[in-house]
Amino acid sequence: MTTIKAYGTESADADLELMEIERRDVKATDVKIDILYCGVCHSDIHAAHNDWGSATYPLVPGHEIVGRVLEVGSDVKNFKKDDLVGVGCMVDSCQTCGACEDDLEQFCEKGMVATYNSKNKHTGKKTFGGYSTSVVVTEEFVLKVPENLDIKAVAPLLCAGITTFSPLNHWKIKKGDKVGIVGLGGLGHMGIKLAHAMGAETVMITTSPDKAKDAKRLGADSVLISKDEDEMEEHKGTFDFLLNTVPVKHDINPYLKLLKRDSTMVMVGAIEPLEPMHGGSLIMGRKRVAGSLIGGIKETQEMLDFCGENNIVSDVEMIEMKDINKAFERVMDNDVKYRFVIDMKSLKDK
Amino acid sequence: MTTIKAYGTESADADLELMEIERRDVKATDVKIDILYCGVCHSDIHAAHNDWGSATYPLVPGHEIVGRVLEVGSDVKNFKKDDLVGVGCMVDSCQTCGACEDDLEQFCEKGMVATYNSKNKHTGKKTFGGYSTSVVVTEEFVLKVPENLDIKAVAPLLCAGITTFSPLNHWKIKKGDKVGIVGLGGLGHMGIKLAHAMGAETVMITTSPDKAKDAKRLGADSVLISKDEDEMEEHKGTFDFLLNTVPVKHDINPYLKLLKRDSTMVMVGAIEPLEPMHGGSLIMGRKRVAGSLIGGIKETQEMLDFCGENNIVSDVEMIEMKDINKAFERVMDNDVKYRFVIDMKSLKDK
Repeated sequence: MTTIKAYGTESADADLELMEIERRDVKATDVKIDILYCGVCHSDIHAAHNDWGSATYPLVPGHEIVGRVLEVGSDVKNFKKDDLVGVGCMVDSCQTCGACEDDLEQFCEKGMVATYNSKNKHTGKKTFGGYSTSVVVTEEFVLKVPENLDIKAVAPLLCAGITTFSPLNHWKIKKGDKVGIVGLGGLGHMGIKLAHAMGAETVMITTSPDKAKDAKRLGADSVLISKDEDEMEEHKGTFDFLLNTVPVKHDINPYLKLLKRDSTMVMVGAIEPLEPMHGGSLIMGRKRVAGSLIGGIKETQEMLDFCGENNIVSDVEMIEMKDINKAFERVMDNDVKYRFVIDMKSLKDK
Repeated sequence: MTTIKAYGTESADADLELMEIERRDVKATDVKIDILYCGVCHSDIHAAHNDWGSATYPLVPGHEIVGRVLEVGSDVKNFKKDDLVGVGCMVDSCQTCGACEDDLEQFCEKGMVATYNSKNKHTGKKTFGGYSTSVVVTEEFVLKVPENLDIKAVAPLLCAGITTFSPLNHWKIKKGDKVGIVGLGGLGHMGIKLAHAMGAETVMITTSPDKAKDAKRLGADSVLISKDEDEMEEHKGTFDFLLNTVPVKHDINPYLKLLKRDSTMVMVGAIEPLEPMHGGSLIMGRKRVAGSLIGGIKETQEMLDFCGENNIVSDVEMIEMKDINKAFERVMDNDVKYRFVIDMKSLKDK
């Protein structure tokens, strides 16, 4: 075991503060990573505050990790010292169930091991996230990061990027499709960039007219204001796909009207129960509503490679580790464009 | 125009009563049908009572029509006098839009013409349904009924049959799939028969243990009581497909848990807004909820042929035309196994 510095919390009510945690020694199949950057995901806040009721403390958040390989175990085949790598929301799974065999470890039937607040299979203790100086991860859950990208802005790709790439990829979005991205936040801004890069006619759908300019800068071909009933009527039945990133309770019926016959709206943000859905919204036009959760490791690598080829990163605001509590508050106020990333040098130098 | 006898209503509050309506003369592409039997669908009641706000009076319900051809127009190719035929929920559509070209007239972009309470394209007046002695329908919307079936019990196939066949067919249910039919009424009892005939392991999912015996008689391999949490937990993640026929407001989250990863629940009964759906119910396992509305004419013919080959008809209780108001009350009380069918001889002899 090695003792390292991290930022975490001892209870749901407390601020995050400097603490020491232990990382396991490097086993034969392990990769030890020097963490350079870690994104701040809204889930980190929900976890720290125990909003989902499953938190155990101490809790160290962080599942958008980018760093360089410090050391590899004797059996590691795909990584060597100094490789630029990433770690996302998962660090382990059973590797044998149907879901794992289908490269969908996020749906591992025995439960995937989350990057933090999960049981660590190797130590029997718990996992701690990327708000820390280093991490040891089994090779299968380490991703290659393209060297051509602005690496501090790569971190959010590991969660926000794959969460939006996976449904666009799984539902086979292609050149010419009309794709609506509902909601412009951490997820939505990646949705726009990715759908645009896939060649889709990308429409930002938002309640806020003041987001229009930024949406277009990010790659949206046009902006549809969902509060404008005339505009919504004009786009009725014209979308091949909708990616709904709205994280709070809302009425999805107006969006369903936008879909073409036999088309799908995928929910990736929904963490609160939705407003009642009308059966008629689905029945007329054989519409579909589906969910999607991050993506498997294979698909996450595909996403990173796609971003490397298309020079896509997240729009980020860099912070120092000590400013994390203020950053949490600003995320809760939707006051970030579009993702905070912690420069981990600020923790190492502390 | 020919004046014929029908049973209809002059207002939302009135009982159905004997009235006279006009049928158009047979045009070159028309088929005139002597109505032998007409099923009583719950929609007939909603329409008569103007529950959906779109009724105009007088209104003659009935869209589960079986009869024999009386006369055909000079250009009619596929039907001749005395053929056994059926008419379902539609009697016309634009025949040129994308949906019509895809044999999905129920989603006609210009609006399909419903068998009753729609604008009649030929007369400029309105359409009247099958609670009548005869009907004139354009050839494209007339279906061939297999002669080997018990024809009085064929009538409900034209709506309840296609409504359940279409999603099972569209989502490609095959031998060995585990299919759950949620709700045992007019739709559900057809869902069981059809899924069973397609070779699926068919599970009746119901709140009522007293429906178990009948469900098995209809072809269910087993019965899952949705109020029994232990039993629901046991079946969690095991269904390839769910067909939800429940027509009233209900919570679909427990059913979504029953689905395998990447599987779909199709709603065909929902006429009231559903209880709030949890995003997590969709996200975990990439589940899908979809809608389905009757079926196109081509698929309706496929359904009838399938029923002919597999000797499937509806379970019916025969009534005379004069007893329709009592039948409506019993349908509202769920007191029918599983579909009333009017013997139209009782109107002709009146």
